[in-house]
Amino acid sequence: MKRITLLGATGSIGLRTLELVSTFSDELAVSGLAARGSNVELVADLCRKYDPRAVALLDPAARDRLARLLPAPRPELLAGVEGLVTLARQVDADVVVSAMVGGVGLLPTMAAIEAGRTMALANKETLVMAGSLMTAAARARGVSLLPVDSEHSAVYQCLVGHNRSDVHRILLTASGGPFREWPPERFGAITVEDALKHPTWKMGAKITIDSATLMNKGLEIIEARWLFDVSPDQVQVVVHPQSIVHSMVEYVDGCVLAQLGVPDMGIPILYALTYPERRPTPAARLDLTRVGALTFFEPDPVKFPCLRLARAALEAGGAAPVALNAANELANAAFLERRIRFIDIPQLIERAVEAEGVGAITSIGDCLDVDARTRHRVGEWLGRAGGASQWT
Amino acid sequence: MKRITLLGATGSIGLRTLELVSTFSDELAVSGLAARGSNVELVADLCRKYDPRAVALLDPAARDRLARLLPAPRPELLAGVEGLVTLARQVDADVVVSAMVGGVGLLPTMAAIEAGRTMALANKETLVMAGSLMTAAARARGVSLLPVDSEHSAVYQCLVGHNRSDVHRILLTASGGPFREWPPERFGAITVEDALKHPTWKMGAKITIDSATLMNKGLEIIEARWLFDVSPDQVQVVVHPQSIVHSMVEYVDGCVLAQLGVPDMGIPILYALTYPERRPTPAARLDLTRVGALTFFEPDPVKFPCLRLARAALEAGGAAPVALNAANELANAAFLERRIRFIDIPQLIERAVEAEGVGAITSIGDCLDVDARTRHRVGEWLGRAGGASQWT
Repeated sequence: MKRITLLGATGSIGLRTLELVSTFSDELAVSGLAARGSNVELVADLCRKYDPRAVALLDPAARDRLARLLPAPRPELLAGVEGLVTLARQVDADVVVSAMVGGVGLLPTMAAIEAGRTMALANKETLVMAGSLMTAAARARGVSLLPVDSEHSAVYQCLVGHNRSDVHRILLTASGGPFREWPPERFGAITVEDALKHPTWKMGAKITIDSATLMNKGLEIIEARWLFDVSPDQVQVVVHPQSIVHSMVEYVDGCVLAQLGVPDMGIPILYALTYPERRPTPAARLDLTRVGALTFFEPDPVKFPCLRLARAALEAGGAAPVALNAANELANAAFLERRIRFIDIPQLIERAVEAEGVGAITSIGDCLDVDARTRHRVGEWLGRAGGASQWT
Repeated sequence: MKRITLLGATGSIGLRTLELVSTFSDELAVSGLAARGSNVELVADLCRKYDPRAVALLDPAARDRLARLLPAPRPELLAGVEGLVTLARQVDADVVVSAMVGGVGLLPTMAAIEAGRTMALANKETLVMAGSLMTAAARARGVSLLPVDSEHSAVYQCLVGHNRSDVHRILLTASGGPFREWPPERFGAITVEDALKHPTWKMGAKITIDSATLMNKGLEIIEARWLFDVSPDQVQVVVHPQSIVHSMVEYVDGCVLAQLGVPDMGIPILYALTYPERRPTPAARLDLTRVGALTFFEPDPVKFPCLRLARAALEAGGAAPVALNAANELANAAFLERRIRFIDIPQLIERAVEAEGVGAITSIGDCLDVDARTRHRVGEWLGRAGGASQWT
């Protein structure tokens, strides 16, 4: 039996992971669950269904509400960032699925790596913020970082068994999002509803907006650089609207290996959970004769400046990717709250990265400092303290 | 230095192999050359350029002419099938490239396997005739059979590092040949010139005709069954006119791995020569954004009955694939000589397989008997002894 601790149980990836635990209940079980705590009823339901040993909620008040919903005997209940870290570090698990959204996952993910747990990584923001530190910690502990993003799972599968030194470049595919064919002059009028209409993938709100700006692909460039230990210019993006080719690896001899499948997150999640084995998935099978044509395009750098911003931050290094990520999280949320326009998102991020500069990052503490400073700064620009800002 | 013995030096694959030896002369060298002997001048040139230790020509008269063209000191000169077998067995080589066309390669290829040489296999007819015996001999001697066909090289690359037991099916891609879009009523009027116009690959005449009838893909189904130890129904064909995806492997979890590249035989040949390493190829690199769309279709069973005939022969087993291969070689040649029509090819093959029946094959001797019997039978039908036949 493989015991799983799931950081981010109530999100899109978390719930899909739990569905797979139900499907493969003869070999997968839940040992720990963590979530922000915004949906305590759901967490209570998951506890009844999956019987974890411990549960951690970021919000202490939510922990107290959960205690009232679950009569004893109940799982150990933890709260706050410390609670999440304790869960990740102390609850025995064969795999820790890191599936929280945003930088909040950083400390529990690092704790799980330091505890030597095999990681299934869906929380790309943690690698964007602290890729160097996380991969060094994983190497030091001999920890496997198994990607859950469909693109990185594809790359991982295209690398298995081949020599890393023979890699010429990694080609991340991008659907191009809902605005791929929109003319630039319409971008000023993009609504939240427009941006939430992803053409191929059904995902949470934050990543869906990131896919519309292409920042998601920018973050994935940074993620790939760290997961696969390649140079930034070895990671390139190709737009592929059908989302059937999930990503590719080109080798020095001109051979390109690609991983294809229907767009269903159940496939890469299950691969990470059962690695190095595979299990028949309940997902639909790919029938290329019914897909029609697979097409590929260069990304448009004018309509999607986030791609350039992410690559520049990766190349600058140090504080830049941390500031990029924090500013993006706030800008993304502010757009979802209709406080800024779609085209303000990259502007806000660019200004935040410039304001932070390129200080060195030598510890998780440094990451958290840059993260907090950027959130404070962008928050002020957004006029959170009250009143309108230049961005509204 | 890797020493190469090349069976089939003057064919399309042979000459491409030698170009690669020239390009990578710091690590590849020629130890032996074999050819039919239809172009002795060319063989003499190759001897001067690549300085092999020994040369074998199928035609003894060609051996004598070669002796006159090459003053001493010259390579050891051998002739006949025995000469080819001696070369394969006795000349030291790190890799033997089996690149003769047709069943004539069977005995030297078996001799090289029995001598424990690593094999780069381009001669698919040998595996079609004696797949069971060849793979058993390779297993017994711990010999690697590295495929050179672009499709099987692709499959090989998609299997490396993954569990064989997780394979759901192998998807061989087929360009569909020059007649993919021709209506069936035009098939009766297909000329040799029409059939030699392959849309994507530049190859020798025999394989180009086989590609036009799709018998090439039929032979490749049989080849894949033996090379990758899968059941016949695990090997399927998908038509992909661009010849960019060279083949695919679908795993039980719905993940499909594909190998892509420009259609250049230099890539799979070099992969087999340098395996398990890769070298930067002189070939053009794939740029998917310039390729346009990749499309996929079911093969048309009515226009291309050879596919069905090959699968039926594989499923029948025993003598059937041997008869299929021999009849195809003769029908292919007869079409090239304008003695039969394009649509006569499958009819001739079907009749030959039926006439031979499904006798067991337990030795290479059995293979050669069925091969000779079928050639005799089909030769008689073709009226080689003189005069017109029903096939003209």
